Amino acid sequence: MKEIHGVMPPIATPFDGEGNVSTEHLAGNLAKLLETGLHGFVVLGSNGEYPLLSKQEKITVLETAREAIPRDRLLIAGTGGDSTRETIDLTRRAADLGADAALIVTPHYFRPAMTAAALKQHYLSVADASPIPILVYNVPVYTNVEIDAGTVVELARHGNIVGIKDSSANFMRMGEVIRFAPPTFSTLVGTGGALFPALSIGAKGAVPALGNIAPRECVKIYDLFQQGELSRARDLQLRMIRPNAAVTSRWGVAGLKAAMDELGYYGGAPRSPLLSLGESDRQKIRDILREAELL
Amino acid sequence: MKEIHGVMPPIATPFDGEGNVSTEHLAGNLAKLLETGLHGFVVLGSNGEYPLLSKQEKITVLETAREAIPRDRLLIAGTGGDSTRETIDLTRRAADLGADAALIVTPHYFRPAMTAAALKQHYLSVADASPIPILVYNVPVYTNVEIDAGTVVELARHGNIVGIKDSSANFMRMGEVIRFAPPTFSTLVGTGGALFPALSIGAKGAVPALGNIAPRECVKIYDLFQQGELSRARDLQLRMIRPNAAVTSRWGVAGLKAAMDELGYYGGAPRSPLLSLGESDRQKIRDILREAELL
Amino acid sequence: MKEIHGVMPPIATPFDGEGNVSTEHLAGNLAKLLETGLHGFVVLGSNGEYPLLSKQEKITVLETAREAIPRDRLLIAGTGGDSTRETIDLTRRAADLGADAALIVTPHYFRPAMTAAALKQHYLSVADASPIPILVYNVPVYTNVEIDAGTVVELARHGNIVGIKDSSANFMRMGEVIRFAPPTFSTLVGTGGALFPALSIGAKGAVPALGNIAPRECVKIYDLFQQGELSRARDLQLRMIRPNAAVTSRWGVAGLKAAMDELGYYGGAPRSPLLSLGESDRQKIRDILREAELL
Amino acid sequence: MKEIHGVMPPIATPFDGEGNVSTEHLAGNLAKLLETGLHGFVVLGSNGEYPLLSKQEKITVLETAREAIPRDRLLIAGTGGDSTRETIDLTRRAADLGADAALIVTPHYFRPAMTAAALKQHYLSVADASPIPILVYNVPVYTNVEIDAGTVVELARHGNIVGIKDSSANFMRMGEVIRFAPPTFSTLVGTGGALFPALSIGAKGAVPALGNIAPRECVKIYDLFQQGELSRARDLQLRMIRPNAAVTSRWGVAGLKAAMDELGYYGGAPRSPLLSLGESDRQKIRDILREAELL
Repeated sequence: MKEIHGVMPPIATPFDGEGNVSTEHLAGNLAKLLETGLHGFVVLGSNGEYPLLSKQEKITVLETAREAIPRDRLLIAGTGGDSTRETIDLTRRAADLGADAALIVTPHYFRPAMTAAALKQHYLSVADASPIPILVYNVPVYTNVEIDAGTVVELARHGNIVGIKDSSANFMRMGEVIRFAPPTFSTLVGTGGALFPALSIGAKGAVPALGNIAPRECVKIYDLFQQGELSRARDLQLRMIRPNAAVTSRWGVAGLKAAMDELGYYGGAPRSPLLSLGESDRQKIRDILREAELL
Repeated sequence: MKEIHGVMPPIATPFDGEGNVSTEHLAGNLAKLLETGLHGFVVLGSNGEYPLLSKQEKITVLETAREAIPRDRLLIAGTGGDSTRETIDLTRRAADLGADAALIVTPHYFRPAMTAAALKQHYLSVADASPIPILVYNVPVYTNVEIDAGTVVELARHGNIVGIKDSSANFMRMGEVIRFAPPTFSTLVGTGGALFPALSIGAKGAVPALGNIAPRECVKIYDLFQQGELSRARDLQLRMIRPNAAVTSRWGVAGLKAAMDELGYYGGAPRSPLLSLGESDRQKIRDILREAELL
Repeated sequence: MKEIHGVMPPIATPFDGEGNVSTEHLAGNLAKLLETGLHGFVVLGSNGEYPLLSKQEKITVLETAREAIPRDRLLIAGTGGDSTRETIDLTRRAADLGADAALIVTPHYFRPAMTAAALKQHYLSVADASPIPILVYNVPVYTNVEIDAGTVVELARHGNIVGIKDSSANFMRMGEVIRFAPPTFSTLVGTGGALFPALSIGAKGAVPALGNIAPRECVKIYDLFQQGELSRARDLQLRMIRPNAAVTSRWGVAGLKAAMDELGYYGGAPRSPLLSLGESDRQKIRDILREAELL
Repeated sequence: MKEIHGVMPPIATPFDGEGNVSTEHLAGNLAKLLETGLHGFVVLGSNGEYPLLSKQEKITVLETAREAIPRDRLLIAGTGGDSTRETIDLTRRAADLGADAALIVTPHYFRPAMTAAALKQHYLSVADASPIPILVYNVPVYTNVEIDAGTVVELARHGNIVGIKDSSANFMRMGEVIRFAPPTFSTLVGTGGALFPALSIGAKGAVPALGNIAPRECVKIYDLFQQGELSRARDLQLRMIRPNAAVTSRWGVAGLKAAMDELGYYGGAPRSPLLSLGESDRQKIRDILREAELL
């Protein structure tokens, strides 16, 4: 399979006026993003509002994405959930639909029971059953679960577990994984606010929400790093800090979609229970985008 | 509709040797529990492993339960989830299948966005759309979300929002709701470890995991309280503290199912990623059940 | 020694216009509170802003309180801290100054290291060294540390560890302690919002911030419970829920002091970094006090 | 004053067999560390067990350190605490005793009240009163308080607030501070596990516990970064990940002192309630130190 590296944003899922998945706008956004040099795409991640979609809708999103994205770019599908069984089922569907790999969130509802042993059993079961390689997805801001570095290193020995997306940007965990996992294992940072420092310590790429609104800047940081242009990479990274916060920690998916609206993508409303941003927050986002020279 | 009060345990979902929902064992457990004086039953709650079931399985559980439970006992269905849309859809299905009310967990995946405004919109949308009354389900140990008392009091004004199950047993929240919500609103404590003190402050009942393994004792506490036999109610409550902890905070669903196995119900294995208890923990559970005179 | 039971509020520490401890106002507040039937007093608790006082100021507060409080009422001193050594030293000073018992907060700064073993060693060391009985003080809202019921039960076997104040009002922990600790061990609930249900399950009393502003009501709840007037006790308890929240979870010490100002006690400003309430919050407090018939 | 940059470890406080501060061993450790190229030293930080020391002991530590450390190396004193008043008092004492700057931990006991406004008032008051420059110290693992980037940027405008030590290694916060604070403001990462990536994004240095046991390696990472030897800096950083975890997240101060014992420094026992490591954990530490080529 293709090596997993580069900038692969978690694509937002657009809804139409009736709140239905809009395949048209999804395809439209992807078409624009394809011109920016992004290395791949993640659909059905947290920023794709996966917990708010029905199974059928998830399949629709996947089909649309695979059609829009040429085979030479990575398409990674978020197919994880609380249940090992359902995760396996959806992962197989994703493989059938042409996904290159699957991003498997840590199960989390029964948080106190999500010990290292439970997580290990889950990931090994999914890896054994999946026709495509899988990546661990650690996103404690949403799951309140943390998978420790030692467990990741153990999982990395499985031939079908090929990477981790760490949205917590915990450099100690990432560092331990980079040092002790096989060199083919891909550590991806899950936020655009730490892309450059993550690359500097050996991460192979990123799955940044920021890539939905600043794809060229994210790719540029990646390219500058590869070229050894560290001072320029750092300056661009620092410029992206506030836009990144706006679409993640500060306003979440609603902020991401509002920023997309400002920048010529189709953002639209998130799904309930997520609320759309009001005008005063939108104005703040415009100011942030302008200060960062994105608008 | 029937007033919501009394002891209504969240029924465990049994799986067979292949890991499929066992309607046979579910019906068997319910038949035994029906002889114990329980006032009602909740299916598809956290202890029913709802996040690990497919939609079709949820419907199967509901059908089985409604068939097993006579119409004069309450059947409450856990139909909530992260998505307002999916919650409405499943709640309508539950109504069609004869559920008397629906228990709607606070949406939680997008935790930082689950403000009072977001929760309010969610519950009001579901209440408007639901053919049956709904109850708020607050269970921060799993969701990491807390709904505040003021929001519950506001929601209680909606004619179709008839109660709350508070698994956190927060007496300040329960007290404020009891004082300021309409008298018809049912505050239910979500743990058998606080049943008696909750009744003393005005709760109308409980949805205790403990009711799966000590149904008679739970009903007895309720009855003793109604009869003003407070000292005996307290003593029985205190005797139930450790068994309650064993099947909730200490070993969770796995502990509940292990204890059921000991007591003549069908517990069996929980679903992955939940792990079954090992023998040394089972021995501890036996000791706890014996000390509490349940075994 | 005197048995530890009843309502014993954690007394606020008043500061004068220069921010110094005002022994005059402390004595004045105590004189008023002594007329209300309170069974005892805790000084240097969280509501006494103990972390903001120097050691010399703590001694001054203790001296003033012991002088103001007749020997037939309990005076309990908060002498705990992060260091076992310093805790022992201050506890001995408190004994010299006439404190009847010492309230020892769980050490907490090095939170990840505060295992059951570490807490046990701490409490046993202090109990061995203290000339006066000690009580465990569990207050996770401030310390982010929880002492588990099993550890408390073990500690309760030490002759000089005579009780626990549990500010988290965790009924499962309180219940387990009441059932398994010696009958002479005093479980005290640490919030006035759960006084009545705590008594109903076997607590011997309370250390409620609410006792600073509604001492007669707290004592009345206690007396009504002793007299078996449960319905009246419950109604009064429910009336106290919002005032209790105002001076604890909602506005903390600043709210407590603002409410004291309204009710004829000397509240004054808390110490920096705590900020005084603004006028709009004070108005809300007045409204809450009026609704609860305290003003 | 001297610019604040480079590697400045938080020095452990040694205790003798009776549990008293050992100035002899403190001076001995500093003498060895002075030969390693470290740019400065922080005394009375968390790793110095500051919450377990009396005020007089803190002064003793400071005097000893100032005597041992030549004037051309930075000596930074941890003088913060929960009380603004006490913080100011101790900071002034530290200035008298020759400290070059003071590290001021976020106040934390009254955590729910530690709003941005409260933190701002605290830091501005201390900065106004302090004869020496101060640094903000953000260490949520112990304090459960987070100061947000916007507040830090505001504080950085005060002439006497010259830096931040961020032990959480939050790259989004550090990045925003680096971009928006004045260029003279020093962002220091508070863990040796993220030293190299922090430098890469513009941090001026670090205050790493790791510097107590691997001072040469920490200085080497710093120097390699300055020389543009990024690949070698990264490799050395990755080698230091597990030793760093051993003396921080995994075993804390007890682990740090055990590792010091192995490496020819005087570690000794931490103070109660901290517990010393047992032999099996010590063996694990030895293995980690060997794997990392420190032993």
